[in-house]
Amino acid sequence: MSNIKVEPKTLPGFMELLPNDQIRFNEIKEKIQKSYEKFGFLPLDTPIIENAEVLLAKAGGETEKQVYRFNKGDSDLALRFDLTVPLAKYVAEYYGELSFPFKRYQIGKVYRGEKAQAGRYREFYQCDIDIIGDGTLSIMYDAEIPSVIYTTFKNLGFENFTIYINNRKIFNGMFEHLGLNEKSVDILRIIDKIEKIGKDKVIFELEKLGLDEKQIDTIVKFLEISGTSDEKLEALKKLNIDNEVFNTGVSELEAVINQIRMYKVPEKNFEVNLSIARGLDYYTGTVYETFLDDYRKLGSVCSGGRYENLAEYYTDKKLPGVGISIGLSRFFYQIDKENILENENKSISKVLIVSMSKNEISYALDIANKLRDNGINTETFLEDKKLKAKFKYADKLHIPYVAVIGEEEVKTNTVTLKNMETGEQRNLDIENLIEEIK
Amino acid sequence: MSNIKVEPKTLPGFMELLPNDQIRFNEIKEKIQKSYEKFGFLPLDTPIIENAEVLLAKAGGETEKQVYRFNKGDSDLALRFDLTVPLAKYVAEYYGELSFPFKRYQIGKVYRGEKAQAGRYREFYQCDIDIIGDGTLSIMYDAEIPSVIYTTFKNLGFENFTIYINNRKIFNGMFEHLGLNEKSVDILRIIDKIEKIGKDKVIFELEKLGLDEKQIDTIVKFLEISGTSDEKLEALKKLNIDNEVFNTGVSELEAVINQIRMYKVPEKNFEVNLSIARGLDYYTGTVYETFLDDYRKLGSVCSGGRYENLAEYYTDKKLPGVGISIGLSRFFYQIDKENILENENKSISKVLIVSMSKNEISYALDIANKLRDNGINTETFLEDKKLKAKFKYADKLHIPYVAVIGEEEVKTNTVTLKNMETGEQRNLDIENLIEEIK
Repeated sequence: MSNIKVEPKTLPGFMELLPNDQIRFNEIKEKIQKSYEKFGFLPLDTPIIENAEVLLAKAGGETEKQVYRFNKGDSDLALRFDLTVPLAKYVAEYYGELSFPFKRYQIGKVYRGEKAQAGRYREFYQCDIDIIGDGTLSIMYDAEIPSVIYTTFKNLGFENFTIYINNRKIFNGMFEHLGLNEKSVDILRIIDKIEKIGKDKVIFELEKLGLDEKQIDTIVKFLEISGTSDEKLEALKKLNIDNEVFNTGVSELEAVINQIRMYKVPEKNFEVNLSIARGLDYYTGTVYETFLDDYRKLGSVCSGGRYENLAEYYTDKKLPGVGISIGLSRFFYQIDKENILENENKSISKVLIVSMSKNEISYALDIANKLRDNGINTETFLEDKKLKAKFKYADKLHIPYVAVIGEEEVKTNTVTLKNMETGEQRNLDIENLIEEIK
Repeated sequence: MSNIKVEPKTLPGFMELLPNDQIRFNEIKEKIQKSYEKFGFLPLDTPIIENAEVLLAKAGGETEKQVYRFNKGDSDLALRFDLTVPLAKYVAEYYGELSFPFKRYQIGKVYRGEKAQAGRYREFYQCDIDIIGDGTLSIMYDAEIPSVIYTTFKNLGFENFTIYINNRKIFNGMFEHLGLNEKSVDILRIIDKIEKIGKDKVIFELEKLGLDEKQIDTIVKFLEISGTSDEKLEALKKLNIDNEVFNTGVSELEAVINQIRMYKVPEKNFEVNLSIARGLDYYTGTVYETFLDDYRKLGSVCSGGRYENLAEYYTDKKLPGVGISIGLSRFFYQIDKENILENENKSISKVLIVSMSKNEISYALDIANKLRDNGINTETFLEDKKLKAKFKYADKLHIPYVAVIGEEEVKTNTVTLKNMETGEQRNLDIENLIEEIK
């Protein structure tokens, strides 16, 4: 019973919410989960701690610096920094027991020791789906992903968002055509920033990289392709870049676009965007980014793409895949700050039951039981407080109804139900009470 | 693209499930969550990493040795080893913004570097509820807890389980009466083992502790009190241990038992058990343990109790509380191993849609869309494989229905639906398809 107190402080960069916000956060998380399940993705829940050797088999550079890595006994451990590496480990480890295409979702916390700043978290939720093929994976799955994105954001209450789609082979084919293969990663990094820095700066940076005028010209011409998705596809075909990689890229992109239409994703919610590269050299085909049309400054809220080989660091098996990720913690921070989704008051309980005195407790608990049996989340206030304090409690917790029980209610086998929003009070029997609250 | 592979190995002591088991695990987790919410508990999701100073303010001995503790930059960090300490920190930190009694649940992973052995995990889920009072907390909440336990295990599909209830003040009063105050913690630890080691060994250990015959006699007499809960309460009153602590304990226990009845918890599911102490010196009043009647060897599957002061290491505010915890990972391991709950085959998808050729893909995706719009989790198999392979996929994933679409089905605007369990096949239009699968 020391009197010296430790300051109860949550670490900077770690999201911790008050109950009302936590309810909102969980609702979004659950909607994402339900959307993923609608397409048959299977749940996974891999450990947060892994062997550092396993987790960092591929990593390097920035990632490795950010990783939480430590020893426990003789073990060199690390906290997962994404959900893709654990998936690669999982598929390689349990390969023989999985069915392919292996479709899984995972919603969980990952850890990066980044500089703490507003909206950047060191512990944050990622909501991932991936479809992994055994040896091969049909391009048709590349069209299922945008359909999942569409369903997810629709379920979250959004109407105005655009899924941008591109194919890395188009870039790669063009670079091959221009003899710029070796610089392709650098060029892609530059092009990827066009939304942020604009065309002129992109040209400037390409010059700095040593590209000649003709090369830059072709790239700019390429970047200036505009119009509808179909118009862009036509323009690509007219560029006369006749090599196999480029042609494959264009025909894959065309196939994906056509098939997205079969999924009945509205035209306004997807679009070919030839400037999207996804900085990482990880993606090899289709790539996606998703923007909220009215809040473009948020950046992409859901990104991903197709990769050649998920688990090459663990197995010789070729495991191509396609997937996306939503950075939920950051997304929640953003939509909360910008007031994008209705910042409603939320409650777990539908009704708070209060009794006027101890004499009515038994009757009150009985009513509570019946409501719960009817699927209604019901809370009973059991502290010996004034009625006013009980109403204040319901009010602070945004509980929509308060059922008051006094001598009279017990006698008549009813409750007096107050609608906390309208202030309306009604005397109801149990059947009508259930109906009213439901 | 190195050819030297890292072995994809999950750490020992870390649970990682195959998809079918993961679905089962998640169902149990969700049922626990829904049960907690039925009583109005609010969700919390505190960070897994905390300042070591904060997390270990109280800890010592065994706990401290097991904690995952490490440095990142200048920070001395630790992974949470339970959900109670983070709750204490949370309530102290956000005291002014919470409503009391503060009822929260938290379901999350905690970390203890224990010796790895079957059913003991280093990363495991705890499912906690606690009710925290501001200054005081009515004893009536001590009766709500068993009602939540009852509802939870009922919802999990159990009928035969017993919630054992005791009150630490009864022990404490007796020890005071016997002049054994100073040895009370040791005595409680011994008594707590009576289920495991039997009466004789308890006597032996009490002798070793230096108790005299008369003292042991009273304790044994006390431990031998038997009968119904009411008979035990009567027997306690007749022990003539007349001190305030003892009398308070008996009357609190009586009040809790009487009120549990108001919650309509069946008599067979709860019982006064005077031997339960809960080893920890943390609890100060009511204590709970829960046993599955047919699997007593599993030990308590849900335990907890009343404590005087949740957050004394962080604040001067007095915050009494009552709560319980279910160790979900271990519980799942046990019920899985013992085959206690039906080990059913589970599926996320209700139906797999397969088309005979590429010509029917558009129609197939349309059907899939319609099913999803009707709330049915629907998967489409898009790989170009033989029909047999597609059925095998559905079979391995335990998907209950396969909808086959060929030329004929497109022409007649139907699907051929196979019930994978009965083998029955029917040709259905979309309305009947939805109805059949729902």
